[in-house]
Amino acid sequence: MPPPLTAPVNAVRPSAAEEARTIAASTNTGTLASLTADGDPWASFVTFGLLGGAPVLCVSNLAEHGRNLSGDQRASIAIVAPGTQDDPLASGRITLAGHVEAPVGDERVAAREAHLAAVDAAKYYIDYSDFSLWVLRVARVRWVGGYGRMDSTSGQAYAEAQPDPVTPFSAGAVAHLNADHAEALAAMARTLGGYPDTTAAVCTGADRYGLDLRLTTDRGLAYTRVGYAAPIDSIDQLRSAAVELTRRAREG
Amino acid sequence: MPPPLTAPVNAVRPSAAEEARTIAASTNTGTLASLTADGDPWASFVTFGLLGGAPVLCVSNLAEHGRNLSGDQRASIAIVAPGTQDDPLASGRITLAGHVEAPVGDERVAAREAHLAAVDAAKYYIDYSDFSLWVLRVARVRWVGGYGRMDSTSGQAYAEAQPDPVTPFSAGAVAHLNADHAEALAAMARTLGGYPDTTAAVCTGADRYGLDLRLTTDRGLAYTRVGYAAPIDSIDQLRSAAVELTRRAREG
Repeated sequence: MPPPLTAPVNAVRPSAAEEARTIAASTNTGTLASLTADGDPWASFVTFGLLGGAPVLCVSNLAEHGRNLSGDQRASIAIVAPGTQDDPLASGRITLAGHVEAPVGDERVAAREAHLAAVDAAKYYIDYSDFSLWVLRVARVRWVGGYGRMDSTSGQAYAEAQPDPVTPFSAGAVAHLNADHAEALAAMARTLGGYPDTTAAVCTGADRYGLDLRLTTDRGLAYTRVGYAAPIDSIDQLRSAAVELTRRAREG
Repeated sequence: MPPPLTAPVNAVRPSAAEEARTIAASTNTGTLASLTADGDPWASFVTFGLLGGAPVLCVSNLAEHGRNLSGDQRASIAIVAPGTQDDPLASGRITLAGHVEAPVGDERVAAREAHLAAVDAAKYYIDYSDFSLWVLRVARVRWVGGYGRMDSTSGQAYAEAQPDPVTPFSAGAVAHLNADHAEALAAMARTLGGYPDTTAAVCTGADRYGLDLRLTTDRGLAYTRVGYAAPIDSIDQLRSAAVELTRRAREG
């Protein structure tokens, strides 16, 4: 990838912990890794809700993964962001690793509600005596954002981060930017993104801090990032943030 | 669910091994469970091809799951059939468990081709020295077909079974049966499926052996199965098999 020719003005992006929280909040299915009685690794499809960032599972005690969790509480869950990428390895995914605990008292009430809020069908079995709630206490987190974008973080940083309030609702706005504002995106890449030789730019994502851009130069394809003047808190603020980016790009 | 009032004429359905082979062949992504150096279970997103029914992985030795497989070859992979079900627990999924081996000689060539055939982007990294091919030697199989449909089978039965030649191509034919032949489906359920009190029937799936039906009776919702006169080998034969089922249903 050709390097930028000038310093990007503001390339701040979500942290690994924020990226991981966003992916966890994007779906209600994942794959659990648990341990059999022999200590073998067992991968199994699960549904989950979130209590804070902690996955809440509701599994049958009769199922293999239910027996596994009863026997050894070490567990991890892999979660893949829903995507429409042709290349599956371009999609975002995380692994949350730690151990499960059966919640008690007020936490059990909250965990049950969190699971029901995410998994509608659970209302048919969540109160059966042969089903158990488990909360995954996340000790460490691995995030992979696609090719060449990855990082690890702690369970504490993950717990303290927030899911991005913009990304899950941004598909329409990103499509609109690409359809109707291609020249503004190219101007952003030239003036703010560090690539003054940009000939065309496509927005590939939006989050609370800025826009991801894929751009074309005579030196080849490149990726950059343009940050808003200040972080935004909702999708409703994306339009004015993009207008402000465009103004700065054209003034610069 | 109300019981059938007469014996279904031919309720043969795919074996658990056949169901599992069909699900494995339906996608190129799954989740690996491997073991960390501490013996903790680690869930991670992977792509795979199939050599016979054995998943062929291509993973970076620098990635956590690559290091895990180098250290301990015990592994399993969970694979979920792509689906459009609103309820994720209604979808088919499998766990294939055993251990991985690095293929050598002719098998390495075949494994490399199998992975490339399934994962186009692998051409960019499969020959890098820091990536390894691993073949999962499947010792045991767990299949879940949705609510209340599940079974286990051996690695040998899985290896000897074939993916269903009809199911992956049946969505259009199933939609056509439901849109244009609802009365024929109800007749099948009444005469061949054991529910003479059927008031309406919907086809929920087709495979080489027959059709899955969800039907309505005054006694409640029920599920049954109607088998073709003989198994079919391709989607091209589904139309004549359905015509023959309709003829028998109306004669009965």
